[in-house]
Amino acid sequence: MMYSNIPSAQTLVLFFQSWGIKNIIISPGSRNAPLTLGFTKNPYFNSYSIVDERCAAFFALGMAQQLKEPVAVVCTSGSAMLNYYPAVAEAFYSDVPLIVVSADRPGDKIDIGDGQTIRQENIFEKHIGYSANLKQDAAHSRPNKIAESQLSIQGYNERELGKALRMAIETSSPVHVNIPFEEPLYGLTDHQDVHIPLHEEDVHKEDTIVDWNKFKRIWEGSGQKMVLVGVNPPNHIEQEILNLLATDESVIVFTETTSNVHHERFFPSIDSIIAPIEKSTNQEVLFQKLQPEVLITFGGLIVSKKIKAFLRTYQPKQHWHINPKKAYDTFFCLTDHVKMDFNLFVKALYSDTKVVASGYQKDWLKTKSDYERKRTEYLGKIAFSDFAAFNVIQKAIPTSYQVHLANSSTVRYTQLFPMDSSLAVYCNRGTSGIDGSTSTAIGASIHHDNPTLLLTGDLSFFYDSNGLWNQYIRSDFRIILINNSGGGIFRILPGFEETEEFSTFFETQHSREASHLAAMYQFEYKKVATKNALENALSEFFEKSEQPKILEVLTPRALNNKILLDYFDFIS
Amino acid sequence: MMYSNIPSAQTLVLFFQSWGIKNIIISPGSRNAPLTLGFTKNPYFNSYSIVDERCAAFFALGMAQQLKEPVAVVCTSGSAMLNYYPAVAEAFYSDVPLIVVSADRPGDKIDIGDGQTIRQENIFEKHIGYSANLKQDAAHSRPNKIAESQLSIQGYNERELGKALRMAIETSSPVHVNIPFEEPLYGLTDHQDVHIPLHEEDVHKEDTIVDWNKFKRIWEGSGQKMVLVGVNPPNHIEQEILNLLATDESVIVFTETTSNVHHERFFPSIDSIIAPIEKSTNQEVLFQKLQPEVLITFGGLIVSKKIKAFLRTYQPKQHWHINPKKAYDTFFCLTDHVKMDFNLFVKALYSDTKVVASGYQKDWLKTKSDYERKRTEYLGKIAFSDFAAFNVIQKAIPTSYQVHLANSSTVRYTQLFPMDSSLAVYCNRGTSGIDGSTSTAIGASIHHDNPTLLLTGDLSFFYDSNGLWNQYIRSDFRIILINNSGGGIFRILPGFEETEEFSTFFETQHSREASHLAAMYQFEYKKVATKNALENALSEFFEKSEQPKILEVLTPRALNNKILLDYFDFIS
Repeated sequence: MMYSNIPSAQTLVLFFQSWGIKNIIISPGSRNAPLTLGFTKNPYFNSYSIVDERCAAFFALGMAQQLKEPVAVVCTSGSAMLNYYPAVAEAFYSDVPLIVVSADRPGDKIDIGDGQTIRQENIFEKHIGYSANLKQDAAHSRPNKIAESQLSIQGYNERELGKALRMAIETSSPVHVNIPFEEPLYGLTDHQDVHIPLHEEDVHKEDTIVDWNKFKRIWEGSGQKMVLVGVNPPNHIEQEILNLLATDESVIVFTETTSNVHHERFFPSIDSIIAPIEKSTNQEVLFQKLQPEVLITFGGLIVSKKIKAFLRTYQPKQHWHINPKKAYDTFFCLTDHVKMDFNLFVKALYSDTKVVASGYQKDWLKTKSDYERKRTEYLGKIAFSDFAAFNVIQKAIPTSYQVHLANSSTVRYTQLFPMDSSLAVYCNRGTSGIDGSTSTAIGASIHHDNPTLLLTGDLSFFYDSNGLWNQYIRSDFRIILINNSGGGIFRILPGFEETEEFSTFFETQHSREASHLAAMYQFEYKKVATKNALENALSEFFEKSEQPKILEVLTPRALNNKILLDYFDFIS
Repeated sequence: MMYSNIPSAQTLVLFFQSWGIKNIIISPGSRNAPLTLGFTKNPYFNSYSIVDERCAAFFALGMAQQLKEPVAVVCTSGSAMLNYYPAVAEAFYSDVPLIVVSADRPGDKIDIGDGQTIRQENIFEKHIGYSANLKQDAAHSRPNKIAESQLSIQGYNERELGKALRMAIETSSPVHVNIPFEEPLYGLTDHQDVHIPLHEEDVHKEDTIVDWNKFKRIWEGSGQKMVLVGVNPPNHIEQEILNLLATDESVIVFTETTSNVHHERFFPSIDSIIAPIEKSTNQEVLFQKLQPEVLITFGGLIVSKKIKAFLRTYQPKQHWHINPKKAYDTFFCLTDHVKMDFNLFVKALYSDTKVVASGYQKDWLKTKSDYERKRTEYLGKIAFSDFAAFNVIQKAIPTSYQVHLANSSTVRYTQLFPMDSSLAVYCNRGTSGIDGSTSTAIGASIHHDNPTLLLTGDLSFFYDSNGLWNQYIRSDFRIILINNSGGGIFRILPGFEETEEFSTFFETQHSREASHLAAMYQFEYKKVATKNALENALSEFFEKSEQPKILEVLTPRALNNKILLDYFDFIS
């Protein structure tokens, strides 16, 4: 096997191997050659080549999210690394262990007018778990021997690497390793020169001390308790736990498409509950009826703006967030952050705890079945539109697919219709950007047992069009692109006006379609614009194929917002 | 006229008007609605809509570079602004007054789990002239009246805005204005509520005290003086000044394509001088013969790595950098930074100064005519290739075109062939990234008197493919894409090996062509792969057309590096 003859490069590569970081996404460059050589000449690693660093980082993010382990991106010096930043921020807020490795010039070459040279150290410091700024190390000619003078550098670099990798693994945070190299960069040796200490798992978690008496007393004393689930990976919550909550009549569980928990007694369409109340003349009474005394949250960020607005106004007396790492005070009334796994928390909470008689759940289940009936009725009478299309599409997704949702209309529309409980649903809700949905979905698909579907809108899809520029797209990868010729969400938000300024600067109306990109990147491509055509296309869309596929669904730009807003009127 | 009813938004827009900042590039979003409304409803501004913020910022950079005045980009909250960072870093190192305006959430909504919310304040602090973090301001219902409590916020915001704009204008630096908004965001008023102080030019530049005696004494006492010109805008140096230097036989002037100065006695192909010396058995003697006693530099960054390596080894006794703002110690021997305009400096230096008799210039002009003769000979015998293509293309560019060069092979190849003195040549050499060349060229073309040509390689072109996604591309815009199926530069750099790893991870070999993008973005498109076909295509390529045009030039991937490296052997 061949190694870079620069000790710091060799050390980094062997550290990654020792710590089990196997997947490396490399963007082209010369300054990072010692790392590119080190990773690609070592059969332990799966190395991937992606040119556009913005896409590379989201691709790595998707992969790390699925594997639940760190994935690294490696780039050359200069502005290359800045293109990683959108994915770094998403990883930071979504708790994904993305490892960014940037090759750098030596310190004395910075700000003296050399090309591809910027101030790289700590560049992500506002959104990073740890920044390891390694020290420069020279290539050496005598194999198997590190000069005395380099030993302190070696020790420093090993300590910094250890801190960064530990942080990534133990806290699921993105971390940054900056590593300066001087030329020559391409030197190889067949000797391993550095000794890498074996990585020992050393996760001593402090036992959380929980005042169970308090929690149980409050739980038993309350007839209106709400559980609100944010972004949550599939198969994380045990069915027994879900059943405990679902069968407690004093509890309502509000979920989102990205919550990945299901029960017929849960409430998967929050806005279909809240929007009618907002429109009611009886608003205050109804909101008080919905207001929980105790709110339990777990998982990541919440999509629904309506539930946030509601809970900020009608605050619960108690808000407990259950998460081993962090808690946001999303509703300005957080009383407890319980640092433990949600399964364990619920199990303990319900052990020897009295169940409270309450009509809370039953009443709202009645509301739920009402809007479900009305939704069916409404779907029977509307024109083809975003609203109609999502209903058709969500019914057609085969079981066990991994489904990636783009921001922001897409993830919001999916909340309005049932999603099969076998589906694994993801969306970049850490920063809720439109910038990397396609790359994330492709990265997430690579090692997955099941096929992946990306459900995306036109702005997000064209924004990340370079996401398709790689050699790793599986033939069973599927994209459904809802193309409403612009940012349809702006027609729904307050402030909409039918003017040229609005359609240019908010909606950013366009007439772009995906056929050219499909041809460029060898996707099978089909375009539909009616309900029938969509249903027909879907009937074979998920069948096996030689090439991945894009199904483009054209919907009427100027009609979509009306149909959505009328829906909330109709169910009110 | 209509204004946002949020005083801080109104203030920002009116400040920009008062300071003459006319061109605003807006990306879609809701949080920035108060600004989007403010700019687009005010006829003073030219507002442009570009969805992908990475492209928007490079577009603005190109426009600001041409207008020599600040151009602003405006985006919503969250990861959107992170996509500006590559262009911000380029602007920082290229001294372009790019103004970044990011709408933000109110401070109490940060890190509580709201969507599209990150830590925006000071985010570019490593590469920015000034970061103005404005304070939040509420919309108000009573027009023409700001509450007492808001007056201190108003004062603070005005001071910060003034500092940022002054910095951008006076130092040609990028600056960042972060401005938080609370909902409602879309409120308008027909009253101007804020009073904006008139902007008065207040540029009191300190007189530079120059020890002219010292400079003149050294100048007169030296028979080997070199002037090296970095990135420099066209028409900046007066012909009289160029003549003074060119006719001084003790002076050689080394220029690059991006220097935009021309004289038959200048040396526009540095590498054609230095590469043969590197190969010579007589290297040390020749380098000593070339070594200047005095080196004067002006302009921005230098492209040629060979001149940097040479001057770092064979350092001049004196290195004077002439620039009103900053000086890099590129060769580790800077003795003086003279903060003045180069025209004035040379005029003063040559007033009543003795001319030194010297064979310095004459000897090297002989070398120049030698390699020029050999280059012609070499071109007659080689196969079609990158090298051959650049020669043909550079001869064919019509006079007075604006020419934008992508990084990095492109700008390096152009150095090897003459560029007509009427052409205005640009390249993003601040960070030398491949990430925004197309967007920069399009932005630069918008207000230009003459047509623009972008000369680009395949990696840079496909990297910035979203650069074509806007409504502002002029029908006389031209792209020549030299497609050598990957990063050809890696075959030229040391470290090249003909292995699969190399072609995947360094060269990133691909078979992509531009035809699909041309169709998608309505460009006329032609593809050529021979010298004859290229010459034929060029004979009509620059003619007027309804649509902009792309000419794709396919060159032989595996041959290009050999032909280039053999050239240096041939002229040695």
